[in-house]
This record gives sequence, structure tokens and C-alpha cells, in this order.
Amino acid sequence: MKIVIAPDSFKGSLTATEAAQAIERGIRNAFPEANTVLVPMADGGEGSLEPIVHSAEGTIVAHTVRGPLGSPVDAAYGLLENGKTAVVEMARASGLLLVPAALRNPKLTSTYGTGELIRHALDHGCRRFILALGGSATNDGGAGMLEALGMAFYDASGSVIHPSGGNLDRIARVDDDAFDSRIAESDFLLACDVTNPLLGLHGATAVYAPQKGATPGDIEHLERNMRHWADLVESKTNMRLHDYPGAGAAGGLAGAFLAFFPSRLRPGIEVVIDSAGLRRHMPGADLAITGEGSLDVQTASGKAPLGVAREAQSLGIPVIALAGAVRPDLRALYEGGISCAFSIANAPMPLEEAMTRAGELLEHAAEQAVRAFFAGR
Amino acid sequence: MKIVIAPDSFKGSLTATEAAQAIERGIRNAFPEANTVLVPMADGGEGSLEPIVHSAEGTIVAHTVRGPLGSPVDAAYGLLENGKTAVVEMARASGLLLVPAALRNPKLTSTYGTGELIRHALDHGCRRFILALGGSATNDGGAGMLEALGMAFYDASGSVIHPSGGNLDRIARVDDDAFDSRIAESDFLLACDVTNPLLGLHGATAVYAPQKGATPGDIEHLERNMRHWADLVESKTNMRLHDYPGAGAAGGLAGAFLAFFPSRLRPGIEVVIDSAGLRRHMPGADLAITGEGSLDVQTASGKAPLGVAREAQSLGIPVIALAGAVRPDLRALYEGGISCAFSIANAPMPLEEAMTRAGELLEHAAEQAVRAFFAGR
Repeated sequence: MKIVIAPDSFKGSLTATEAAQAIERGIRNAFPEANTVLVPMADGGEGSLEPIVHSAEGTIVAHTVRGPLGSPVDAAYGLLENGKTAVVEMARASGLLLVPAALRNPKLTSTYGTGELIRHALDHGCRRFILALGGSATNDGGAGMLEALGMAFYDASGSVIHPSGGNLDRIARVDDDAFDSRIAESDFLLACDVTNPLLGLHGATAVYAPQKGATPGDIEHLERNMRHWADLVESKTNMRLHDYPGAGAAGGLAGAFLAFFPSRLRPGIEVVIDSAGLRRHMPGADLAITGEGSLDVQTASGKAPLGVAREAQSLGIPVIALAGAVRPDLRALYEGGISCAFSIANAPMPLEEAMTRAGELLEHAAEQAVRAFFAGR
Repeated sequence: MKIVIAPDSFKGSLTATEAAQAIERGIRNAFPEANTVLVPMADGGEGSLEPIVHSAEGTIVAHTVRGPLGSPVDAAYGLLENGKTAVVEMARASGLLLVPAALRNPKLTSTYGTGELIRHALDHGCRRFILALGGSATNDGGAGMLEALGMAFYDASGSVIHPSGGNLDRIARVDDDAFDSRIAESDFLLACDVTNPLLGLHGATAVYAPQKGATPGDIEHLERNMRHWADLVESKTNMRLHDYPGAGAAGGLAGAFLAFFPSRLRPGIEVVIDSAGLRRHMPGADLAITGEGSLDVQTASGKAPLGVAREAQSLGIPVIALAGAVRPDLRALYEGGISCAFSIANAPMPLEEAMTRAGELLEHAAEQAVRAFFAGR
């Protein structure tokens, strides 16, 4: 009896790895002899590094870089496939959670640290990169990341500029003479679920800058700067990011990759499924178990449980989903390959209790669910 | 695919029949073609009449009788097996819930109405009786019930006494000349889970009279009266109820049956299982579903879900239990034949919400549980 355990995190309660371990304990309570395979999942955004590295049996490389506001941050990236592939979660170097709420300001933040992680991985020999793009503190169009990789920026008077969201308009010239040449030999896979372009009403600034600390008065300034940057990039690369779907991800960081790197965008969950090796583990399973904090209509669009279910469904493998909350309508989940879904609540209880006791409750729910499943055999 | 649906009531939310119907809806959502058999359960105490009659496809006979304090009560009993068997729930005629809280007083209450139901059923031709004994308002040793069936009670001066808990001590003579002779031709099965004797520290008065409205000062008086009654019964029948296990059930009503009727005590759940026809419906089922408001350690001792599970287990049929709350340790439930247990809560929520939405939540939980079960096939 082989069971693949592939949950997303239970946000605020359990990491994906902790959730997978709790589910495994529940299965073992019922069937100590079960062959369990833990493949913690993520959606390809913030928090994806650890599950991918765990599932792919990779390693974590610690590396201190410049944080969003320039002060040092203890960041990390992952190495898969004997160090050939690097997993870089931009939020670990340039994420909003690295900045205290009072200091959040996309005029000042930079993706420089993300570029440092990439450079370190290039030094290590990596030529394949997986980029998790969610959770950024930045609106610099990725210029900071480019700077860390050797791109130089100058104002009209020839002075060096260290780019951030608030000074992109002052860049008069971009010099790529020292831009890291190893990038052209590499491949960059961008895990990205948003389709926002760089500019406009649905662009990076209008949609995401407010939650990164921009005041209403900042927005116009930031948008004007980003337009200047997009024009510069177009004149340099012929790549028009202005209305390119996805270029606005992570404060325009995606756009910089698209313009200057051999790169392509892919839905986050597909990137995770590939890199975590789910396709390798799934064949031969009798059952797959997935889950996340809340199973709802959003789950049907790109979140981990449905991605896991799609993989399982294609092999005819039943899928049990476990979640803090299970909201109807579940029809879309059924159609996506989820056989059934259970809440971890074993009684009426406050949300706080369910979150505090999530590990124990998830273990209990997994035990009952697999007992139901195997009772049917 | 045959599924037997045999839940107890969800107290405060759903009758057993409503619970069974909600579970059936959930099963049909998942498998419209399922062959479902509804066998609502009860524990043999208060509230057992309706599930037994529903499950056995019997009929309900309405009959107005004297309530616990003498005023009319719209009571009812059930007819099974083409009217050969009567189901009498004493609480429908002599129950505590029929008396407003301020008027509860076991010195004044009588089981007379229960006797009237029996007499009506005898008139109807019934010679087999099932008595559900829980929930009484009385402490009259069953003397009121005997009076309604022709037994006459006199005091020392020869005046007629209408017995109640408070005047049993005044009974000097019992005359059974007019006692209904059809009783001797009949068979009385007493559904009873308590083992309390008539008298003493664990007797009917000491244990149950307080919750029926007796003041601490009443207890001694009621106990003395009951002792007088037990002595009278012994002198009349040679049956010593004083310390007879179970004689104290329903304020001593059980003792009157044991002394004056062809009768025997049986655990309530076994009586219900027999009379509801569960044994007839279970063979050939692929799955049984049971449930109740709260699955906990008490469930292991005599409540409906474990009774259902025992029946199913003996035939190798898996059992899913659904409940408002599922409390560990569930080991005893597993050993009793319950395969797995799920809460109806599909998310953290207050108890009030779970109770208000119980039907809808039970339907949802049943759908998920059978989907898990059949996913295993």
C-alpha cells in the first residue's frame, strides 16, 4: 500500500513539510505498514523554497545578501539535482515580510539581494534556475537584481544610480558590459500565477504597490518611473514589457527576467510539481493525500491541491483532500480529481483552536480518512 | 451498492429520522443510484418511539391520557407487526418534559398515563409490549400505572388512594381483583440501561428524584415511601425489588413490571435493534452509516452507534460514524466495529452554528465519507 502525501502549507499553522508529517502520523496510526512518500507542496510563490527542496531531496545554501532596504538579510536558496539547478525564492532576499511594517516603502526597496542569490548560485555552477516570484517588497522592475549581476545604471550627468522604485526615472543610461555572461548560458524558469502587465490599471504598481507600503500619492510617481524603465528596456532589448502579461509579477522583477535572461513563465504549481518530483513519485500509488489551510473556490484556480489531484487523476489514483475549512461548491474540485475533502475540525471549535491544534487535528483527520478509504476495499 | 443508514438522533438538532434522511441526501449527491435503507436508531430510552416505529414501518396511535400531574396529555404509542406489538415510551405519558420546570415534584406525579397507553393497546389486541423507560417525571414505583390497569389501593381506613410518590406510605392494602387479566397473557420487554435498584444509595429516589424536582428534604420521605411500597410488593408477590438491579428505572416503574407483569429487562439498544429490524436490513449491505450528536467514551457503553457497529461487524460490514463532535480516544469504537468517524463540522465554527446547520452539514459529511469509502474500491 503506497500513499503519496502532498499537502500545501496550512498558512499560519503548519509548513507543508509539517503538514505532510502530521498526515503521515495519522496514516501510520491506522496502517503502520503503509508505504508513505512525503512530497510537500507549494504554489510556486512565497514559501515554495523549503517544500521544493524537501521533496526533491535537495540542499539549502545559506547566503547573506542585501535585504529590500539594503541592510543584511540571512537568505538562502536551494540546490537540486546535484547542484545543477538552483531554486531561488525572491521573497527570501527581497520579500515584504523582511521589512517591518512601518518601513515598507516601494520607492526605496530593491531586488538587489535576489540578484546576489543568483550570482552565488552561478558561482556554484548552477545553470538552471527556478524562480519563485511571490511576496515581494519591491517595485523596481527588477533593476536592483540586474545591478547585482553586473548591469550598471547612470543618470544624465553620468553618476551611478543604485536603482529602486523611487529613482527609476533618473536612469538615463544602462550599461551591460559587465552583466554576468553566464546568464546567457543558463535557463530561468519563472514560477508565476499572475498575469499583470508592467504598467497601467492592472499593472505592477496600481495593483500591488499599495500593499507594499505605497501611499496613494506615491502611486503616480512609481507608475511614471516604471513607464520610464519599460521604455528604457524596450529601447535596449526590443522587448515591450508595458502590457506583457506576467511582466508585472514581483514588482516587475518578472519583466527584467523576460527582457534580459533566457527565461519563460510557467504556472507556479506546475513548476513545483516538476521540481518536487511529484510525477516521479505518483505512479504506483494507491492513494494521494493533499490539503491546505482552506479549500474553496480559489483552490480550483492554480493552488496546490488541485495540481496534485490533476497529476493523480491522470493516473487514475484517488485523492483525499484535508483542510482547515472545506467550503462548497466542491464540484470544481471533484472535476479536478479530488475524490473527497474533509475538515480537520473534529468538533465545533473556534478558528484559533483549530490553528493552534492543527498538527494534532490533521493527524486525526488523516487517520479517519484513510480508514474510510481502506474500509472500502 | 446497498447502504444501511442507522443514526441516533443529534440531540437538540435532528431527530434520528431527520438525521437518516440528511445522510441519505449526502449519499445520493455522490451516488444517485445507491440502494439506501433508512433505519433510524435510538437508545431505548426517551425519544425511542418514533425511530422504532419508522424503522419497523409501524404506525403511531394517538391517545390522550392523564399526564404526570393528572391533566390531559396528547400521548401516543406505536404498533408494529400488524398491530401485534405495541411500543410504549413512558416519557410520552409520564415524562419529565411534560411538566413545567416550576411544577416538577415527584411527590405528586404518577405513571397512571403510561398504564392508560398499555390498556389502550391491550384493547387494540396487542399482547407483546416494548417499554422505553427513560425520562420519567415520577417516583411512584409504577403504582400509578398499575392503578390505570385495574389495581386498587386503599389506606388503613379503607379509603381509595390514587398513588403518587408522596402517598405510597399510606397504602395499607392492594386489591388486584380487577387487575387487567390480559396482562398475564402478554409479554413485556423493558428497554433499560440502568442497573439502579429500587432503594438505597443507588436507588431510584436517591439518584434520580433530585433531577425530577425533589428537594433535599423530600428525599427521605420519598425513600421511606418507596420502602413501604417495596415491602408491600414483596408481601404480595414474593418479589423483592429492594435491591433488584434495574428495578429503580423510571422511578421504580420497572420494578412494578418485574413484580406484576410477564416481563424482562434488556439493554435499550438491543431492544431497538431487534424491534427496528436492523438485523433484517443489515445482511448484504456494503456499508453501514451511523451517528449521533457526540461520539465519545460514553458511546462505547450502550449508545446506538456502537450497537449498530456490533451488528455490522458480525457480518463483516464496514461502519462509518458521523457526529457533531468526535472525541478521542476512539480505540474502543474501532474495537466495537466502527471503521472511522467524522465530525459534521466542515470548518471551525461555533457549536450553535453546527447545531443550527446540522442537517446540511450532516448531508455534506455523509457525501464526503461515502466518496472516501468508494474511492477505495
